[in-house]
Amino acid sequence: MSDILPGTVLVAGGDMRFAALAAELSESRKVYAAGFDRSALSCDNCDKIIAVDVMNIPERADILILPMPVSDDGVTLCAPFYSGTIGLEALIGCVKDGGTVFGGRVTDKVRELFAKKGFSVTDYFLREELSVLNAEATAEGAVQIALEEQPRVIMGQRILILGMGRIAKALIRVLSGFGADITLCARKYSDLAWAKIYGCKIVHMRELKDSETLKNAELIFNTVPSLVLDEEHLKNCRTDSLIIDLASKPGGMDFEAAGRLGLRAIWALSLPGKTAPVSSGKIIGETIENILNERASGNF
Amino acid sequence: MSDILPGTVLVAGGDMRFAALAAELSESRKVYAAGFDRSALSCDNCDKIIAVDVMNIPERADILILPMPVSDDGVTLCAPFYSGTIGLEALIGCVKDGGTVFGGRVTDKVRELFAKKGFSVTDYFLREELSVLNAEATAEGAVQIALEEQPRVIMGQRILILGMGRIAKALIRVLSGFGADITLCARKYSDLAWAKIYGCKIVHMRELKDSETLKNAELIFNTVPSLVLDEEHLKNCRTDSLIIDLASKPGGMDFEAAGRLGLRAIWALSLPGKTAPVSSGKIIGETIENILNERASGNF
Amino acid sequence: MSDILPGTVLVAGGDMRFAALAAELSESRKVYAAGFDRSALSCDNCDKIIAVDVMNIPERADILILPMPVSDDGVTLCAPFYSGTIGLEALIGCVKDGGTVFGGRVTDKVRELFAKKGFSVTDYFLREELSVLNAEATAEGAVQIALEEQPRVIMGQRILILGMGRIAKALIRVLSGFGADITLCARKYSDLAWAKIYGCKIVHMRELKDSETLKNAELIFNTVPSLVLDEEHLKNCRTDSLIIDLASKPGGMDFEAAGRLGLRAIWALSLPGKTAPVSSGKIIGETIENILNERASGNF
Amino acid sequence: MSDILPGTVLVAGGDMRFAALAAELSESRKVYAAGFDRSALSCDNCDKIIAVDVMNIPERADILILPMPVSDDGVTLCAPFYSGTIGLEALIGCVKDGGTVFGGRVTDKVRELFAKKGFSVTDYFLREELSVLNAEATAEGAVQIALEEQPRVIMGQRILILGMGRIAKALIRVLSGFGADITLCARKYSDLAWAKIYGCKIVHMRELKDSETLKNAELIFNTVPSLVLDEEHLKNCRTDSLIIDLASKPGGMDFEAAGRLGLRAIWALSLPGKTAPVSSGKIIGETIENILNERASGNF
Repeated sequence: MSDILPGTVLVAGGDMRFAALAAELSESRKVYAAGFDRSALSCDNCDKIIAVDVMNIPERADILILPMPVSDDGVTLCAPFYSGTIGLEALIGCVKDGGTVFGGRVTDKVRELFAKKGFSVTDYFLREELSVLNAEATAEGAVQIALEEQPRVIMGQRILILGMGRIAKALIRVLSGFGADITLCARKYSDLAWAKIYGCKIVHMRELKDSETLKNAELIFNTVPSLVLDEEHLKNCRTDSLIIDLASKPGGMDFEAAGRLGLRAIWALSLPGKTAPVSSGKIIGETIENILNERASGNF
Repeated sequence: MSDILPGTVLVAGGDMRFAALAAELSESRKVYAAGFDRSALSCDNCDKIIAVDVMNIPERADILILPMPVSDDGVTLCAPFYSGTIGLEALIGCVKDGGTVFGGRVTDKVRELFAKKGFSVTDYFLREELSVLNAEATAEGAVQIALEEQPRVIMGQRILILGMGRIAKALIRVLSGFGADITLCARKYSDLAWAKIYGCKIVHMRELKDSETLKNAELIFNTVPSLVLDEEHLKNCRTDSLIIDLASKPGGMDFEAAGRLGLRAIWALSLPGKTAPVSSGKIIGETIENILNERASGNF
Repeated sequence: MSDILPGTVLVAGGDMRFAALAAELSESRKVYAAGFDRSALSCDNCDKIIAVDVMNIPERADILILPMPVSDDGVTLCAPFYSGTIGLEALIGCVKDGGTVFGGRVTDKVRELFAKKGFSVTDYFLREELSVLNAEATAEGAVQIALEEQPRVIMGQRILILGMGRIAKALIRVLSGFGADITLCARKYSDLAWAKIYGCKIVHMRELKDSETLKNAELIFNTVPSLVLDEEHLKNCRTDSLIIDLASKPGGMDFEAAGRLGLRAIWALSLPGKTAPVSSGKIIGETIENILNERASGNF
Repeated sequence: MSDILPGTVLVAGGDMRFAALAAELSESRKVYAAGFDRSALSCDNCDKIIAVDVMNIPERADILILPMPVSDDGVTLCAPFYSGTIGLEALIGCVKDGGTVFGGRVTDKVRELFAKKGFSVTDYFLREELSVLNAEATAEGAVQIALEEQPRVIMGQRILILGMGRIAKALIRVLSGFGADITLCARKYSDLAWAKIYGCKIVHMRELKDSETLKNAELIFNTVPSLVLDEEHLKNCRTDSLIIDLASKPGGMDFEAAGRLGLRAIWALSLPGKTAPVSSGKIIGETIENILNERASGNF
């Protein structure tokens, strides 16, 4: 990372992604961390992080980075790797006047709390580049699951991908390297056009149910967050297929029906945080840096 | 193509893309063509097309396909491969009551002319899938130019692509197969994120001018339709580089400055129609079919 | 698989690859299996396999498929998933006169034992296509390990691959889909030429030790079966790098030195059998089929 | 290129590849050139080359680079871009005692001529890396032909490649970027295995003639230098297909039969020299450098 982040940074709370973020930032600037037990900060490259107590911080920070989500109750910090409790109010006291505050999936309640003290909280989770890079991390995690769960190579497998959003695009790219036989199913013709350009076979969502594609698929990835794989569809799947649902809630398949039909289905939620926490932390750091870069260049 | 197009089709005017479209459609249904000299219909697979005189058509068509653009003056048909002249009014008389009319880049004047007779003209040029597939055709045409103009292989070349729209994405994919050393330059961080996923190096537009990337590039493709390669940038280009501008008017470079600096620059406009007319015609046919499919399934 | 294998097949012994092979073959012909406990034959698609006792087989088989390796002592069958013991002599009695016998890594001792009874044993392990497809399976297994062992995405990682044999070629292809930054190190200039064509950076083995490539690599795959990563090289590796050695014995790195230097090194042996036993079994089946096909067409 | 070539170099004769080679070498050392008219040395970056008369050379060179082929008659230099004539004998006088001589496709006669004066001629054309890099150049040239000759995009085309040597492997890689639908036809099962890994469909040469693959192919590349596309095969090709034969003499198809059947067939010989002379010259230069590197490191 470059030098755009000015002064000192306080990383407060969050899961291993945020410990990794603190480690990454500490390579080039002074980083305080709060809301982590000692063991959570014993990772690779964590030795430059300065663990602090928010009630007794040596100096106020220029930048406060809050986790994703910031808080479950709007009052205390989300800090799953911390045995204590930190109030958001206390954190506000750790930021310099005129300092900058970042958080992920910031609720109105959190936003108001900081606003009352004169801080606006910028939500890095709303940034498109974060979503794009998380999509890559999700795709890699999904491929890891496929490799682990199947006693066979991906090369030559008949793979069906539902949807053509960010995750599907990243999946196509990764799976292409394996020499898989990929069919992309979507509703928009422009999505199907991209799938052809990326070397996939295509099937329109409207024609999926009775298609040979569905009946022959050995591995299915769903990325559509609405019920596309209902019982009628699942009945047509191979009993030895593996179905990996990457859609956020409510998911894209009828898991109960899948169970009844004896299908192997995995709902893989929050993959980047689980399979690639270090990269996820780095992505958040880069996103924050981009925001600051845009502000510095007046391009926002 | 499938069988969604009902009844008979009249293809009227346009360049070789429309002769190819007529040939493609004639594989599976009755196709009349008007606005082409005999020689323009002597292409591969053209033998099933029935050439007709619009003043004396054997039957009125269910579907009329007008070219892109439909007309230069709003009165007569664009028919560059026809030695005669056809009025749009005359064409309206060739369509059945309740028939369907398609055209490309339809102007208000044309739209009104048909509306007065009870026909709404659907513009296939506004469809996203047509733009996507044309982007692929443009990218392939651009690579053809690069191959023709350079006495060297693309493998290993330092290539700079400006912009990350449809054409740039198609270009990245095609050039990756050649083993080129691609750097993508864009302004939006999410575009740069995609470029990384697609295996490219990246440079922010803000940092391009004095970058090593610009100074070392052997081949530059611009896809941004505003002045990005101004004289200040061009001064930093290698004198033996090749610059191919794929942006629509006003283009993305200062051609005059390029000439003064002795740079080799090519403004490649309307590539799909020139280098891949048969595919372009097929793309228009598929797009029309998609529109009819959506209407038939109530999904529009 | 097609129908080239005539009559009945007896699959005797071996690990899960051979249970999978038996299951695959049983889709299209009668398959007897010996040398597996019941639990080893309870896999997907195993229900058509007929488990037999070699002392009491219902009919003699046209084809006998022995495992890889056939036997550790030249007398008894390798049957790690069988609680009993089977002598190779007993197996010979299960094959029809004029029947065909296949085995993997067949020793002279085994070969002679069968020869005395009039059977020549064809070694499928010597076939190039088996080695090629196993290389793909090894590459996929190696990528699985990298995904599991690293808390980060592969995209953008600086990866170093040593050697340019079959496994390295398969690795390059798979890793390219991830958008990794791959450098290939080999001794032969023609190998380096292929690496360039496949989009890799290159470094000659002679220049590896003090190269930035080695110093910066986050992930290293060795495929060279001789000591290339000695202590002098390992000293220059990042302490947070991951080194995966895919070379067969004696391996390609000084594991003791790696341990002393605190490097994370994994010697991943026999990957296809471990991570993709079903594919491995299928590969053996296809190889045997190829051999029979060549004999049938006089092309051997 | 690095600095391995010691002292001065004399590039004598040959086509534009050798003018480009001289230009490339002149970037980092003193280069004399003979056997080129002034116009042949007016290329990009040619200004540092010192044109000389072999009868009157200012100093004897450390290295003499002869063209490919060296001579048609064993007496005079091949110099198609020179209006005069140069005898090989005269050239020998231009090399220092102990100097090094390189040539391409060196005949016994040429070899003996130099041997008599104490020089051994090293044939760069026998080097594998030169063949590999020329294969890439040939593949790119073949794709250029396909783009020029067809009024359609390569994306989605059904492409058949015959053979799986160097050129075929390079072709697969380049065409994959275009999203083509590639089938590879070969005789060896290991070649077919690689084709699967590289994402191709496969067909065995034995089954090609009556295959749907042959009947449906829109674009066919042959790389096999023996008659594979005989009349029986050609009869099954689409009349609107394009066949590009890349095999060296005697070629791989019955061109007379192709003509009789009305098929469009192109025999594309010596592509690298025609479509990428600058790269071809550079490849020769790198190969010579590799040879010298190996000698310097005792690794030959």
